[in-house]
Order: sequence, then C-alpha cells, then structure tokens
Amino acid sequence: MDKTAIGAVLAAVKAQGRTSLTAPEAKAVCDACAIAVPREGLATSAKQAAAIAGEIGYPVVMKIVSPQILHKTEAGGVITNLTKAADVRKAYQTIISNAKAYAPNATIHGVQVQQMVRGAHEVIVGAVTDPSFGKLAAFGLGGVLVEVHKDVAFRLAPTPHQEALAMINGIGAAQILRGVRGAPPADQEALAALICKVSQLVDEFAEISEVDLNPVFAGPEGAVAADVRIIVDPDPPAPPVRPSQTEILAAMNRIMRPDSVAVIGASAEDGKIGNSVMRNLIDGGYRGEIYPIHPRLEEVLGKKAYRSVKDIAGPVDVAVFAIPARAVAAALAECGEKRVAGAVLIPSGFAETGNRDLQDEVVAVARRYNIRLMGPNIYGFYYTPKNLCATFCTPYDVKGKVALSSQSGGVGMAIVGFSRSAKMGVSAIVGLGNKSDIDEDDLLTFFEQDDNTQAIAMHFEDLKDGRAFAETAARVAKKKPVVVLKAGRTASGARAARSHTAALAGDDRVYDDILHQAGVVRARSLNDLLQFARCLPMLPTPRGENVVIITGAGGSGVLLADACTDWRLQLMAMPPDLDEAFKKFIPPFGASGNPVDITGGEPPATYRNTIALGLQDARIHALVLGYWHTIITPPMVFARLVSEVVEEYRARGVDKPVVASLVGDVEVEEASRYLFDHNIPAYPYTTELPVAVLGAKYQWARRAGLI
Amino acid sequence: MDKTAIGAVLAAVKAQGRTSLTAPEAKAVCDACAIAVPREGLATSAKQAAAIAGEIGYPVVMKIVSPQILHKTEAGGVITNLTKAADVRKAYQTIISNAKAYAPNATIHGVQVQQMVRGAHEVIVGAVTDPSFGKLAAFGLGGVLVEVHKDVAFRLAPTPHQEALAMINGIGAAQILRGVRGAPPADQEALAALICKVSQLVDEFAEISEVDLNPVFAGPEGAVAADVRIIVDPDPPAPPVRPSQTEILAAMNRIMRPDSVAVIGASAEDGKIGNSVMRNLIDGGYRGEIYPIHPRLEEVLGKKAYRSVKDIAGPVDVAVFAIPARAVAAALAECGEKRVAGAVLIPSGFAETGNRDLQDEVVAVARRYNIRLMGPNIYGFYYTPKNLCATFCTPYDVKGKVALSSQSGGVGMAIVGFSRSAKMGVSAIVGLGNKSDIDEDDLLTFFEQDDNTQAIAMHFEDLKDGRAFAETAARVAKKKPVVVLKAGRTASGARAARSHTAALAGDDRVYDDILHQAGVVRARSLNDLLQFARCLPMLPTPRGENVVIITGAGGSGVLLADACTDWRLQLMAMPPDLDEAFKKFIPPFGASGNPVDITGGEPPATYRNTIALGLQDARIHALVLGYWHTIITPPMVFARLVSEVVEEYRARGVDKPVVASLVGDVEVEEASRYLFDHNIPAYPYTTELPVAVLGAKYQWARRAGLI
Repeated sequence: MDKTAIGAVLAAVKAQGRTSLTAPEAKAVCDACAIAVPREGLATSAKQAAAIAGEIGYPVVMKIVSPQILHKTEAGGVITNLTKAADVRKAYQTIISNAKAYAPNATIHGVQVQQMVRGAHEVIVGAVTDPSFGKLAAFGLGGVLVEVHKDVAFRLAPTPHQEALAMINGIGAAQILRGVRGAPPADQEALAALICKVSQLVDEFAEISEVDLNPVFAGPEGAVAADVRIIVDPDPPAPPVRPSQTEILAAMNRIMRPDSVAVIGASAEDGKIGNSVMRNLIDGGYRGEIYPIHPRLEEVLGKKAYRSVKDIAGPVDVAVFAIPARAVAAALAECGEKRVAGAVLIPSGFAETGNRDLQDEVVAVARRYNIRLMGPNIYGFYYTPKNLCATFCTPYDVKGKVALSSQSGGVGMAIVGFSRSAKMGVSAIVGLGNKSDIDEDDLLTFFEQDDNTQAIAMHFEDLKDGRAFAETAARVAKKKPVVVLKAGRTASGARAARSHTAALAGDDRVYDDILHQAGVVRARSLNDLLQFARCLPMLPTPRGENVVIITGAGGSGVLLADACTDWRLQLMAMPPDLDEAFKKFIPPFGASGNPVDITGGEPPATYRNTIALGLQDARIHALVLGYWHTIITPPMVFARLVSEVVEEYRARGVDKPVVASLVGDVEVEEASRYLFDHNIPAYPYTTELPVAVLGAKYQWARRAGLI
Repeated sequence: MDKTAIGAVLAAVKAQGRTSLTAPEAKAVCDACAIAVPREGLATSAKQAAAIAGEIGYPVVMKIVSPQILHKTEAGGVITNLTKAADVRKAYQTIISNAKAYAPNATIHGVQVQQMVRGAHEVIVGAVTDPSFGKLAAFGLGGVLVEVHKDVAFRLAPTPHQEALAMINGIGAAQILRGVRGAPPADQEALAALICKVSQLVDEFAEISEVDLNPVFAGPEGAVAADVRIIVDPDPPAPPVRPSQTEILAAMNRIMRPDSVAVIGASAEDGKIGNSVMRNLIDGGYRGEIYPIHPRLEEVLGKKAYRSVKDIAGPVDVAVFAIPARAVAAALAECGEKRVAGAVLIPSGFAETGNRDLQDEVVAVARRYNIRLMGPNIYGFYYTPKNLCATFCTPYDVKGKVALSSQSGGVGMAIVGFSRSAKMGVSAIVGLGNKSDIDEDDLLTFFEQDDNTQAIAMHFEDLKDGRAFAETAARVAKKKPVVVLKAGRTASGARAARSHTAALAGDDRVYDDILHQAGVVRARSLNDLLQFARCLPMLPTPRGENVVIITGAGGSGVLLADACTDWRLQLMAMPPDLDEAFKKFIPPFGASGNPVDITGGEPPATYRNTIALGLQDARIHALVLGYWHTIITPPMVFARLVSEVVEEYRARGVDKPVVASLVGDVEVEEASRYLFDHNIPAYPYTTELPVAVLGAKYQWARRAGLI
C-alpha cells in the first residue's frame, strides 16, 4: 500500500473541507492499494467521450462526475452497455442534461467513460465505521435485490484472508458466486484479496469512515471495482482507552476472588440494602474478612464496624457500595486512598436516570485512583467458589461451572430464579448495569483463566467497546463456550449513512456477524440463554459431526430431525453394517436408518441395547434420544437405564453428548429431572430444546476448531 | 377462456404422445386465455430472422425452438437485447450451432424472434400439481437469485384476485416490484390478473400439470409472458373421494358424542389394552351405554358382555377396537351390519408396519358399510364434555375449550402429559395415527359446530387430502383459531420436477403458504403448539393492533419489544396525552413511551395504576406485562393485583388480552401458576413465550378478519 500517495489525497480533501473523494481521487487511492479498476477517462465533451471509448474498447459505461451528485443512478447520471461511438456521444448529452435537471447548482466536472467488464457478477465490497466495533469490512451482492434482502456480511477490519473468504461464502446468495445455471464462478481468492485490501485501507487511515466499491465486477479471472466512493471524517472518534490484559486480570482477580470485602453503608436495620448485603456475605459463607463501614455503629451483625475504609488495618480488595448515589464519589476517593481494587456500585440514580454528570464524576475519581467500577445500578455479584454473595438479592450456593452476567437487573433476577429452580451449578453471576467501567470483556478476561468456570453466558443490550469484546471473546471462546443474548436486536436504530454499504449495516446484522467471527454462540431468547448456560458445561465436546436419533416414538423422531436441520446438525447417513447392528435390537417393523425408530412397545432392553450401540460405535459422535411413555418402559426406568449406560461408557472413556426428549404423562417430568441430575440434558414435552442445547454445543465446538 | 381452442391443442399433444407443448402451442394456449405474449415469429433462416425482427421492431430476443431442448439458456439457445439486423443474423447461426452441439439428435424447428419488453421487472408466474393440495398457482421474481433464495409464493388454484395480490406482496423481495431506486413499479393488478388466469387454466384442465411463464416482463403498463412452458400429464390423478360436510357431520357427531360405546376385545385382565379401555370409559365417568364384546365372558368390569355387537339390543354409535390387527376386518363387518357410525382402531400392525394390504382390506369393509374409521395405530380419543375416555391411556378430566389432535402417538402422549401438568382445559384429544379414513378435515368439520370447542390445535406429518383440509380450515378458522404443527417440515423430499416453478415448490414452502391462506396459525415447535393450545382460548380477541408493554424491569422491556417485533406485533406509538397520563404514576426517571418502564423499586400501586390505565384507554388493545421481583412488590402480590384489576375491567365489559413475563427468584413460578389459574397467560424466566402466545392470537385474528 502506497501510504504516502493516499495520505496526499486525503490531505487535499481535508484542505478543501470536503468529506468525500471525487472519482479520480478515489481511483488514485485504489491505485495506491493495488485495487483493480476499469480502464477509463474523463470526458468534458461528447466528442472526447467517443475518443476515450475508442481507446478503451467497447462496451463502455458512462457516469456523471460531480462532487454534489452522490447517487448517480438516481440522478440519471449512469448509462451502461454502450457499444458504439454514436451512442457514446448521445449518452454524453443525456447524462449532462439529466444531471443539470437533478441538481441545477451542482458543479459538473464531466462524464467518466469506463471499460465494462462482461460475464461477471456484480458485488459490493466496502467498509464502514461502527460506533461500537470501529472499522468493519463489508461484502454483498450488487443490484437492487441486495437492498431488499439485506444480504451482506461484516467482519472486523483489518480482515484476515480466511475471514474474507468466509464472508463471501456466508451471504445467503453465496451459491450465485459459485456459478449457477452455467454462469462462470467468481474468483473467490481475488475477491477475498480485495476485501482484505479495503479493510487494511480503513484500518490504516482512521479518517476514512466509509468505502463503497459498488459495483465490483467479479469474474472468473479477477475482480474490478467499477465505481468507488470514499467518505472521510476529518475528526474521527478516538479509540476507547483500554487497560492491558495483565492490568485487567490483576484487578479482576482481586475483585472476583477477594480476601476482604468492605460494605460501604452497612446497616443493622432489616430491609435496608446495606443490611441485605451484610447478611448475604455472612449467610453465604464467605470466609474472607468482612468490614462494615458505618458512620456511628461499633458493630454490624457481629462484625466490627469502621467509620471509613481508611480506618481498616489490613488491605481491602473490594468495596460494596450501599449508599445513596450522591455520596458515592466521596466514599470512593477514600477507597482509592486505601488502594481498594474494585468498587461494586449497587446504587442507582446515575446515567440510567439521566444523571450522567454524577456518573462521570464517579468515573473520574475511579480513574484517578485506578479503582475498577462494577455498575452502578446493579444487584452486585456472586462468586460461588469463594462462597461470595456480594449482592442485596438472596444467597445462591449451587456451585458449578458456568459464569453468567447481565446488563439488566431484571435479567439478573431471572438468572438467579432459573438457576435455583433448575439446580444449575454456577461459578459466578454478575450484574453490569450502567457499565461505567467494568464490562463484558473484563469479565471474559477473568473467566478465561478462572479454573472454576467452564462456560460463560452473557446478556447485554450494547457493548461499550465492541472491538475489545470481539477480540477478547475470539481468544476465550477457543477454550470455553461463550453464549450471548444480545437484547434490542430487532429495534435497530436508524443510522446516518452516506454510502450504500453503511446503509446496509443494520445493527443486528453487524452484531450477528462479529459475534460469529468471535466464535460466540448467540442465544435468540432469554430462555435459550439460560438453557444453554445450564447444558453447555454438562455436555462433553463432540468429536465429530455425526448425530444419531434413537427414538421410541416415530412422531418424535420426525420432530427431532426437524430440529436437527434447524440447528444444522448432521444426521449421520447410517452405514450398512451399523444399520444391520441396530436392526438386531429392534422389531422387524421398526425403522433403522436415522432416526433409529425402535417403536413404542419395546422393553427397557431395547432402549439400553440401541443406546449402548450408539455410544460404542466410534462413527457416531452424539445421540439424541426420543422417549415415549409406555407401561412396558415407564419414565423412571428409562431415566435410570440411560444414566447407567451413559455412566458405564464414561467409565470406559467414551464420553459423547447425549440429550433426551421425553413425551408422555406427567411422570416424564420427574424422569427429566433425574436425567439432568445425572448430567444428561433432558426435557419433557419438547423436541426442540434438547436439540437446541446440542446444537449450541456444536456451534461452539466448530468455531473453536475442535471438530 | 377459449376452452375449445385449448382442448384442441391438448388433444394434438396427447395424440402425438408428447408431454410438453411447443412454443407455438403454448402461445396458442396463452392467446386462448388472453395472456399477453410478446410479438414474435419463427425463423428458419438467418435472413428470415432479420426480416421478422424488422417487422416486430428492435430490440429482440432470440430463442431456439426444439421439443427436446427444455432448458434453452443452458443449451446456449437464448440471445437477448439484439438491436440490429446484422446481429440478428449472426445470433441465428450461433443459436443453431449451440443447439446442435448441446443436443445433436434434437429436432430443431427454428429460432423464435421475439419482442423484448424494456424497463420491466422479470418475474415468474406458474402453476404446479402438488400431491396433497392439487393444483397450485406460483409467483416469484425471475433471474438466478430466485433459485437461491427460493422466494416464491403459492396458493390453491383457482386463485382469487385478492389472494393473487397477496402472493405478489408476500414474497420476500416484494419491495422490488413497488419500485426501488427510481425503477418503475410493476402493475400489480395486471400481474394478479395473470396469476388468476394461469390458476384457472390448470384448474379447468386437469391434464395440465405444470405451467411456467418465465420470464414474465412486468412493467408499469402490464405484464407480458416472454417464455411459456406447459407440461401435461395425460393421465392425471383422480381427485380424492370426499363425503359431503353433512355426511361428515352426521357421522362425527355420533362418533365424538356417542350415546353408546362397544369395546371390541374388552378384557377383565389387568394390563390388557381391552381392559384399560373399559376402565377408562368407566372411571372417566362416561354416562352412555358401555358394551364389552368378548367371545366367552358374561360380564366385564361389572358390565354385561356380548359375543358380538350384533347381539346388543340398542343402537351402538361407536366401537373401540382392542383386538389384534388380523381380527379387525371381520369384527368391523359385524359393526357394519349393526350400523355402527365409527370404529376407533387402536391396534397397530397395519400400514405403519408395512402391512398396507391388511389396512386396505379394513378400509374396504368400512366403505362397504359406511363406517368411518379412526386410526388404526392410535391411542384412541377423549371427549371431555361427555366424560368420554375412549383410550388405553390414562383418563383425563380437566374440561376446557381447546381440542387437540395428533398424528403420532408420541405427540399424543405429550399432549396428555402437558395438559395434566399445565391443568389445561380440553374438549377433546384425538389420535389419528395412520389416517386410513378420518383425518384432520373431518375433525375440523366436527369441532367447527361443537360448542364445547373454541380453539383447535393439530399435529400432523402429512395431509391425506391437503385441499380438503385447506378448504375446511379456511371456513373454520374464521370462527375458531386453528393451530397446526406440521412435522417433517425441514426434510422436504426431492420431487421430480420438469418446470422451473415445480423445482421451486419445496414441500414446506407450499405448506406454509397454503396454511397461511387458510388462516391457520403455524406453530414452529411442539412446545409452541402446546402453549398456543393452552392460551388461545384464554385470551380474548384483540380489537386492534396497538400493543403496550408495561414493565418493572427495563431489561425485560427491551427483550419483550424484541419478541413483539419477531411476532410482528405493533408497539403503539404513545399519544402525548396518554404518555402524560402514564407519567403521573411512574417515578420521574422512569420511561414513559412504549415500553412504559415503571422502574423496579415501585410499590404494588404503580403496577395497578398503570395496568388499569392500559385497560381503560380504548386506544390500547393488548397489554404485555414485565414483572421484576422486588421486596416492595413480591411475586404473589403482583399476581393477585393483576388478576384483580383484569377481573375488575372484565366485569365492566373491558376484556383485552393481557400476558405477563415474570423474572425473579423461584416465587415467580407460583405467581405465574396463579395468573394462569386466573386466565392470564404468564411465564417465568422467559420474555419470548408470553409474547409468542399473544402473537399467535393476533395472527389468527388478522387472518380471520377480526382486526
């Protein structure tokens, strides 16, 4: 990339106070990036246009050149497929008069005469600046249909070649580019290279806010950008401040696993938040030091009280705030002097009620003393390995392998209630609220190295620094599943967009693509988030794609297969020898193949034998069980035999994901609970949910490169 | 429509043993239907081609004419946009040599020279023959993208004008046809008229199996079919036999509400199916006559037994069969002589195990005696208003307003278990199994006039006579919600297709469109089917589209709004006066607008006042409540106040749909149950489900024309 040349163009644009490049300027930038553009010339008369066309060779396309006319087609400023000189001359006049009618005051530099590339697909390659994720590369099909289908892919810029290829193959209409009905395929390598170049350009030059190569003609022998639009922002937003991973980790370890906790605003009075926090710390069984801070009392709930954190003799890792918003800044400064690592700001009354100044003041104090802030406007957090309930909610003590966080208190309470009801083992539950400081990427950095956490589930409405999240998640998700519920996904706000690419960058599509790029599993609903959190640490990682359904009810089998297709799970094509092996166990009118339909009237042995075979055969990587309630194999008999046979094979070192759907009378509820207690996800009255949790595990394992 | 002319063309095709029409034949059919086609002529030399083009006017398109070459583009047999005589002459030679290379043995009739319509959208209008639904009209955008996106709409033929318009506006890319980026809009009325004509053509002529108008050029001034392909089936399938609605009703009323039931194979022996059926009839509280049939016993479970139904003195409405498959036909003949209305065939061992002959034999006996058959291979059925449990499963006695049916026994057991667990009031639960005779449309006809049924929920894998179902459902769904879970939706089988339109007619898209046309709500999962069945009769019909969310948790509000968008519910734009009225009840930092965020720390009065306002104001048509567990308003307090205020307004004649999402600790589960007991759908730990059930009610009400 010839950075000097690009810099010179941008400097000239800036000097003239413009925010977009003319076509010749854009071409100069393309040349500097080695982006192929068609042969072309600028004509200022009909005669000259014909002469240029003669040099370039027919057919040509002609386009108005005017800094004021951005949407050329709408202005009648584009005529394509001109095959002879007479047509070119006529087109020149038409374009000029159209442009004058469209924008009477526009400065017209002339008409661009450009080589047309035939036999190629029209695509869009571009780049946008996202408020949360920063510079993004974009790719989509050209033409009007792309606007209707919004079939565009996004990735963080700079974009690696492999991800660029994934973008090309990730759009809904990807098949088109592979060649349909005899059309030649596009050169995907050349297209990917073009995406990479554009992504590098916007990454390198912060002031380039939008790029639109539209259309790009992508044929079997390369890709040519036929029209280029580049928008600059003379004053681009500064990238957010980021502590290093080491700094984050040092602070988060002290906050999440503190040896001492101060409660600012501890209270002896029932019903007060400062009382609930004290009780939860004590009743939860936290074994570190608990220091109540109170202006007058000598003791709170049997613990010696202090006027200020500064009066405490030993070190203090974390301070939980249970005082009114207006008193937070002063108390926080004292924490700063005491070198407290983190402040858990339960109080509300900050940005969420419009009081942004107060929040900014608190953040400034924290920055001054290098204290990390959780909240404000939160329920607090739980970290079960330390029996730590730093919250005014109820204690929670079922230890387990999943860490959850929520931006909103309501969702946090749903997490606590669901966890308790489902007996879900958690390592941590964290409320992030206003996210004035600590956010999801800080938590990810902590959970990544926390041996008590094997999976992470997060609810959020926005990301303060989407890029930091994506980069951290991409690293963490390689080791531990990260599930996300992004709320507000359908109410995507309109954004000011000057380029075509930017207009296509709806919030949700961007989140979807970037989360996918980061290897994050996206839950589509609150209940899915909770169920995935519950099941992902329970399910072993599959070793391959072959899923087999074993069912006692043919009808369930069909529904389970539907769900597998929805989740892109691969129903194994049953090898003949394995088919024969299954057939030995099932009645002659049962169906082997996949689903294996053992039929409804079978005894426990048939379930046991077929499931054992499914576990034993190394070609099968995961089992979906469909149980049908009968007198011959009652629900609890099924539940026991399944957990036994799975346990038996686990003991032999064979640990495959097994999920179950149970249909029948109410006894199937108890049987499902029993299976869950034995680490087998099992659900009554639904064929979708067991497959969804398996699907989520697969989605993660594939992106993490484990299968 | 000139039926004589069309008949003559078809007769000629049949006489020559062909199954497709040549282009001139197809044109003749179009002329007879007043379907506009471009000006054209057939050239057999390059010179003649140029002469024809001169007459027609430029530009022209040229196409090979050969009965053996169906995919002309693939054969290199189409050249478009020819603008002068020299090009036409050259194109003639190219097309002929391409065609000879593609299909050396093909008979080549010449090259068609055809007027090109400019400035128009390319669309496809067609018709196909579906094995279940019969003749269907199809509509989609032309070009290669349609194949990739499968963006096509289907309706039963003949298609009314309104439905044809709905097809045009129902495709994903409908926006294109309304004019995008300065392109002129298509004449939708002309396009709809074209769809209607094609649909009438295939409806009138059974032997026309596929029609493909592709492309149709649809411009602002009409639609012209540029290429026409018509496929005939000389021996079209006969339409299925259908009893009249009166006959169906007479039989179904006797079967579902019998005054007397015979049990063929009644048994005194525990564990036998014939024993379970007897017990369920007696223990269920059925008050009609129960006649056990047994070869030897004098009495079964205290009821006088008979050797044969023929020995019974009084009339017998229905006979439940609990004997082996092979014995069914003979016993059924006796039922026939006794003029039994219906036989409930519990036994398996028929078509589902490959024994189709035995099933055909039983069906033949039933036809001979005019007995309707339920099953075989079913659990039986329940009809609670008569306390009738004609099944070997357990009795079910919670009476209510929803009737459910399932094709599979497994799903049937899920219905029974879920119903019991959720205390769901049902009028009927019916197993249809192999559907040798009685199927979904018979049930719909019965439930339509059954005052005990207010909503109908059905699971099926296929429809024996999809057209009968669609026609009956279209009538019934105007009065009572019909919800369907179509299983096997993703495993759409490949079908032999000779036309482009037919290749696009994936099973599931056809089901989706036709069920929508019939006004049926389609559940996407087993659990949705069950939840919709539970809630639809509980929710009053909304009087308009304005939905308001009232929430104590801002985070839930965002998720509830997401779910509303997913279900196409319209969040009311809050009028300023109403906004002010809400503001009076909520804290200054709460958010009015929609969602109304009352904030989490509020007392019961705030929930009560805002909900009352929502019920009172006539501009609001439905409420979605988001509850957040706090000490100030505990879950049960919320549940009681909501049911009270809803009840209060119901007493005043204001009955709006109200649904609730509860997040919090485990007490929200009890509160949700309480609300359900008071006819308010309420769910813990999910923001999606309460909105989904409201969305399903809206979907139904809109299609039924009630809002």
